[in-house]
Amino acid sequence: MAKITKVSPLAPKGGFPALPQIDGVRFSTIAAGVRYAGRTDVMLAEIDAGSAVAGAFTRSSTRSAPVLDCQAKLGRVEDDAKGFAFVVNSGNSNAFTGRVGVEAVEAITSAAANTLNLPVSHIYTCSTGVIGEPLPHGKITDALSELSQGLAPDRIEDAARAIMTTDTFPKGSCATCEIGGIEVTVAGIAKGSGMIAPDMATMLVYIFTDAKISQAGLQAMVSKQNEATFNSITVDSDTSTSDSLLVAATGASGVDVEDNETFERTLGVVMKDLAHQVVRDGEGATKFVEIRVEGAVDAGDARKVAMSIANSPLVKTAIAGEDPNWGRVVMAVGKSGAHADRDRLSIWFGNVLVAENGWVSPSYVEADAAAHMKGDDLLIRVDLGVGSAESTVWTCDLTHGYIDINADYRS
Amino acid sequence: MAKITKVSPLAPKGGFPALPQIDGVRFSTIAAGVRYAGRTDVMLAEIDAGSAVAGAFTRSSTRSAPVLDCQAKLGRVEDDAKGFAFVVNSGNSNAFTGRVGVEAVEAITSAAANTLNLPVSHIYTCSTGVIGEPLPHGKITDALSELSQGLAPDRIEDAARAIMTTDTFPKGSCATCEIGGIEVTVAGIAKGSGMIAPDMATMLVYIFTDAKISQAGLQAMVSKQNEATFNSITVDSDTSTSDSLLVAATGASGVDVEDNETFERTLGVVMKDLAHQVVRDGEGATKFVEIRVEGAVDAGDARKVAMSIANSPLVKTAIAGEDPNWGRVVMAVGKSGAHADRDRLSIWFGNVLVAENGWVSPSYVEADAAAHMKGDDLLIRVDLGVGSAESTVWTCDLTHGYIDINADYRS
Repeated sequence: MAKITKVSPLAPKGGFPALPQIDGVRFSTIAAGVRYAGRTDVMLAEIDAGSAVAGAFTRSSTRSAPVLDCQAKLGRVEDDAKGFAFVVNSGNSNAFTGRVGVEAVEAITSAAANTLNLPVSHIYTCSTGVIGEPLPHGKITDALSELSQGLAPDRIEDAARAIMTTDTFPKGSCATCEIGGIEVTVAGIAKGSGMIAPDMATMLVYIFTDAKISQAGLQAMVSKQNEATFNSITVDSDTSTSDSLLVAATGASGVDVEDNETFERTLGVVMKDLAHQVVRDGEGATKFVEIRVEGAVDAGDARKVAMSIANSPLVKTAIAGEDPNWGRVVMAVGKSGAHADRDRLSIWFGNVLVAENGWVSPSYVEADAAAHMKGDDLLIRVDLGVGSAESTVWTCDLTHGYIDINADYRS
Repeated sequence: MAKITKVSPLAPKGGFPALPQIDGVRFSTIAAGVRYAGRTDVMLAEIDAGSAVAGAFTRSSTRSAPVLDCQAKLGRVEDDAKGFAFVVNSGNSNAFTGRVGVEAVEAITSAAANTLNLPVSHIYTCSTGVIGEPLPHGKITDALSELSQGLAPDRIEDAARAIMTTDTFPKGSCATCEIGGIEVTVAGIAKGSGMIAPDMATMLVYIFTDAKISQAGLQAMVSKQNEATFNSITVDSDTSTSDSLLVAATGASGVDVEDNETFERTLGVVMKDLAHQVVRDGEGATKFVEIRVEGAVDAGDARKVAMSIANSPLVKTAIAGEDPNWGRVVMAVGKSGAHADRDRLSIWFGNVLVAENGWVSPSYVEADAAAHMKGDDLLIRVDLGVGSAESTVWTCDLTHGYIDINADYRS
């Protein structure tokens, strides 16, 4: 893997945010030597009894052993009096590892259950890193005792760092809302940053809240918000075998948020912020791009067009070149398979109307659009003019940096 | 426009092939100054009366005015006693040019009809180059008289050169077969995915044969062979608004090839060779890659998997790095949406069995696969193990050269 030495130019300017503690959640990390030297690579999160755990996972048909195990456990509560734990390693994804991959998951979850005195079905494990190599799970199980001794409520930033792979910065986000006069807090961490596409990404996300909610209620919110956040980002159209999002609600605030829209919006804010940070750390990214498609006959078509634009190598290289190349946007609309009419199409770069009615707008001055393209954060807006459905997705540009990172022989 | 100065390392070693003349077809070219200076940019092909003309075109919903015009004319014979003509320019694609684009097509086809004394409906025009700029059709119509005077049966290589955009080599192919003791000849030219920054590559293909066949019979063969040739190649997953293939059968050999499988195979050989040459001249390409998928539940699934692998930026960058990164192939299978079972999947690089039954093959030695990856022509073979359908597609790697060509600001 190519050495990543520079932080993404799109990283949040203030560095890692000061995340609030979530009552009922404790973190620990360790340098277990799974693959990397000189850095932490295993994260443990322990969550109090009575919490609800929801999640969303890659739809890949070749998904990894830990993903399958998480999916089987989600929604099960074997013992009300017992909490939950997340055990996450970077460096090895335990994907496409056959029977030994399943055994590694069993070894890790059993050992964590013993160490933390929890049911095995309350232990979720995720792995990210190289595909197809046996996970040296002994390094992880050997570290569990020390990990458990280090658990503390203020170590979420450590956790964010331990799960990084080619990420150039750790990703964190938080938001609060007041419900019935009491503050409810949501805080989360994520890692990116290649193989990012809808149906999730090479992406691990852990979000915690002190809200009180049933597992089913939380799952419904997570699944819904996931569509407009993590499933609406793409770096390179490639989909990981390991993508996992887990959300834990401890209820420690005592505030019941069942079906509460204010809370769902707050959860959505954190999910969208983390999703955007994943794009901002896309491999080789120098531009963060919002693609907004309007006027489609239905939501499916709007999304097809948005993803066709967001995944087009020609659009993405044009963005890298700061070129307001609307011809390539027309091309991407045309190839999407969605219903479109060339002569009703309008395209904006930022607020600059570029094309309308099947041709360059009479008001268009290329210098205006070119000026927009020089920014870090770009908007490409398309009105198909054939309906009223819309979709927004986020992506980044395609640069030499992406090639550098991915064309390097594994080492 | 990025300067393309080097010929693709994958270009055919012998240079442009010695193509046979096809009785009943004459070519001419001229430097009309549509956009380029110091080179030919308009090609005229005149085809004798009694010929059959078939074609295939981009499925883009934003296809260009000349494509729409060609599609409307295909299969129509207004006057049995009159021949046909193809008028093709490079430098400007006349795409997304609204009403003036339609007028340009009308001007060119009317003028050519007058000059050659043919019905307008027998004139096919194609354009490739910059998008969204009015085609200076006067430069083309002014040149028609001189063009028609230059028509000659031995100028097909000139024609191949006149339609190039940033192709790094002209593309030609021919094949013959014997039917009833008489030789039938097929010869064709193509331009491909050299790139006119800022616009998309367009594939134009013209094939000629002296076989005798009905328009409907020829169209059926062309449509069928097109699926396994031009519709089975991908450089970057982007689809031009202008892709056009036209095939003319003059009948001059006197050999009836209606429903003749030998002839269809021969036509397929030329189509596949030209399709491969387009990939070999893919932007920035350093590797030609065949992706062969077997064992799918149906042909649609086999193709989905093949295209998912061929279009994956992570697979394509790994190939550029000569890395037998089978984990990325697993990923691409998983994201394709096709029915697959991780534990029945087998993968080969060349003849090296890399993975089987959901994990690295016990016989796998990475040095063997790495040696295969050092070649120019690579094979990635996947057996899904869940059925018997198969699909083969061809692609190239994704390199810094692609970024260089496409991230350059238009100038």
